[in-house]
Amino acid sequence: MVDTLLIPGPIVLSANVQKALGTPSLAHTSPEFLTVFSRVLQNTRKVFRADPKKGQPYVLPGSGTLGWDIAASNLICPNEKALVLSTGFFSDSFAECLKLYGADVDKLDAPIGGIVDPSEVESHLQKNKYRLITITHVDTSTAVLTDVKKITEIVHRVSPETFIIVDGVCSIGCEEFEFEKWGIDFALTASQKALGAPPGLSVSMISQRALDFAQHPETPTRSFFGSLKRWSPVMQNNESGKAAYFATPAVQLVNSLDVSLDEILQDTLEKRWEQHKKTSDWFKGKLTNELNLKLVSEPQASASGLTAVYVNEPPKVVSYLKQNGVVIAGGIHSEIGGKYIRVGHMGVSVVDPKLDHIPRAYELIKEAMH
Amino acid sequence: MVDTLLIPGPIVLSANVQKALGTPSLAHTSPEFLTVFSRVLQNTRKVFRADPKKGQPYVLPGSGTLGWDIAASNLICPNEKALVLSTGFFSDSFAECLKLYGADVDKLDAPIGGIVDPSEVESHLQKNKYRLITITHVDTSTAVLTDVKKITEIVHRVSPETFIIVDGVCSIGCEEFEFEKWGIDFALTASQKALGAPPGLSVSMISQRALDFAQHPETPTRSFFGSLKRWSPVMQNNESGKAAYFATPAVQLVNSLDVSLDEILQDTLEKRWEQHKKTSDWFKGKLTNELNLKLVSEPQASASGLTAVYVNEPPKVVSYLKQNGVVIAGGIHSEIGGKYIRVGHMGVSVVDPKLDHIPRAYELIKEAMH
Repeated sequence: MVDTLLIPGPIVLSANVQKALGTPSLAHTSPEFLTVFSRVLQNTRKVFRADPKKGQPYVLPGSGTLGWDIAASNLICPNEKALVLSTGFFSDSFAECLKLYGADVDKLDAPIGGIVDPSEVESHLQKNKYRLITITHVDTSTAVLTDVKKITEIVHRVSPETFIIVDGVCSIGCEEFEFEKWGIDFALTASQKALGAPPGLSVSMISQRALDFAQHPETPTRSFFGSLKRWSPVMQNNESGKAAYFATPAVQLVNSLDVSLDEILQDTLEKRWEQHKKTSDWFKGKLTNELNLKLVSEPQASASGLTAVYVNEPPKVVSYLKQNGVVIAGGIHSEIGGKYIRVGHMGVSVVDPKLDHIPRAYELIKEAMH
Repeated sequence: MVDTLLIPGPIVLSANVQKALGTPSLAHTSPEFLTVFSRVLQNTRKVFRADPKKGQPYVLPGSGTLGWDIAASNLICPNEKALVLSTGFFSDSFAECLKLYGADVDKLDAPIGGIVDPSEVESHLQKNKYRLITITHVDTSTAVLTDVKKITEIVHRVSPETFIIVDGVCSIGCEEFEFEKWGIDFALTASQKALGAPPGLSVSMISQRALDFAQHPETPTRSFFGSLKRWSPVMQNNESGKAAYFATPAVQLVNSLDVSLDEILQDTLEKRWEQHKKTSDWFKGKLTNELNLKLVSEPQASASGLTAVYVNEPPKVVSYLKQNGVVIAGGIHSEIGGKYIRVGHMGVSVVDPKLDHIPRAYELIKEAMH
């Protein structure tokens, strides 16, 4: 009996995504694989709600972390200023990554469970010239959801030249997200979150103006493996079905992502976002109203793809669910890490209610409380 | 009918390696996965012939290219000197990577198909103080095999403080390779070559002295995703079965590598190396003696895991084999790229002669000649 994986990524794979992993070896330069890869890149644009022609998607062997590297080493020069909105562990790590590549980082810390005050963002943008701003759409450590649209409106009004970078890990595929409409410059996620594929791929999208900046000869490239000067022509070729090489793609993972993106696009994204919100609202409602538990994230700033909730003795709750075949996660936060649990609700666990994953998790948490 | 993949990586997977890919999602922090990951790291030491306790293996989501990044951004400081022995496209790319991270690179170019003169290596090491030397054991672009042991002897004698870095892509798992005995400081490969797993993993090993250098507070870290300061404690924990996080591991690929490493270690490595050499000798002998073709690599410096051979109209040969269900590769070399073909013979295609992969490839090349 296989455990049901309800951590905030990797998530349970659909049967067809699982099956696609088992594809026999294909040459990464074969026409068969190029057809798949080209479709994956085009569908990445669709899931990000990006322009079908402008900018460029990237699907690279790596992880969500690699997306930070790409932004920090290609979209800002050393000593230029970056504004980081922090809503938890992952936002803080993005700031560390920016500093490593030489950025001068101002970090605005939200109160635990809350968001950064938009007026503070506005005043910082007025006082300083920022090359980029980073927004963690959902911080997987706290389940805090930031209103990306609202922040982008402030940036476009006050500092339109600032690149808007969104960490969309745990959001893209399950939260409302509009790359083109909201005027985002770079958004990144990982395959194993709401995209519903296995871990091992960094998936990202860049705007045309940010791409022009990254490819400009005067922009210093500070990472080799994450170099957009090297990857961009390769991805452009791959997207148009032509072989091009910088590093070998993870063929089987790309095959698997192809199936998961196709499943996501079978219906409208709006419906998918709504399904995640509804499941999340139901789950959070039961935990707070019936079990009198307190969420880590404030109600008006809570993610649809995961729940972080305070419980007494988190290890006992995690362990009780594990004994009953359901795997959830503990907290990760420097101050409150040991006080809460995290439950992921993304992908098939949400869109296929017959699986009964989330109601079952609720029942087990309820039992564990007694 | 699935094509037989005989490019120099990705290679054909064994049935059990293929099957391991299909594992349902596991939490990357679960005891089940940590057991697998710990074994993979320990077995990586064995396949590299490294010390079971000292130094540290790394299995990261990425590719062979990421291994260059790790060496270039952790094992040499900006403006320090690096000596690169180049036997083709991949050695040259490693040099580019080193330059990007600020190394002062001296590159010794071998004649096409040949190796770098050892006396030239010796005189360079005498004249300059090099932080590191890079040796591409097998350059996948030319099938040239460098005598790593001989070069390490020179380095240990003339400049023992110089780190010895070996690009073991297309060698580790099929060529004689002794990390500990030969006194290597960092060796890197990728999952999809002679390790017989799917693409998507960077697999590498560091010596204790190079690890101490990389982790020293005064050594500047210049890559975030490739930072050994960040990865080393994570891998140390994972190897001893403890959860630790920097970026999410590619769970399914690691499961698959676990099976392939186990298959490799079922018999002695010496036998495996011998099998590859024997198959390679047979194949190269048939091509040169019976078809009168000329190898790209000189006979005394030829890889066991692939063959690069000049043919008339390479695209026609590649295409004829493809029509008959066998996929081989064209040349990649700035000067002679359009004049030869490359055939990989690694892993199950070699150790399972019942598959008849290599004799079949030979017969098809023979037919294509007529």
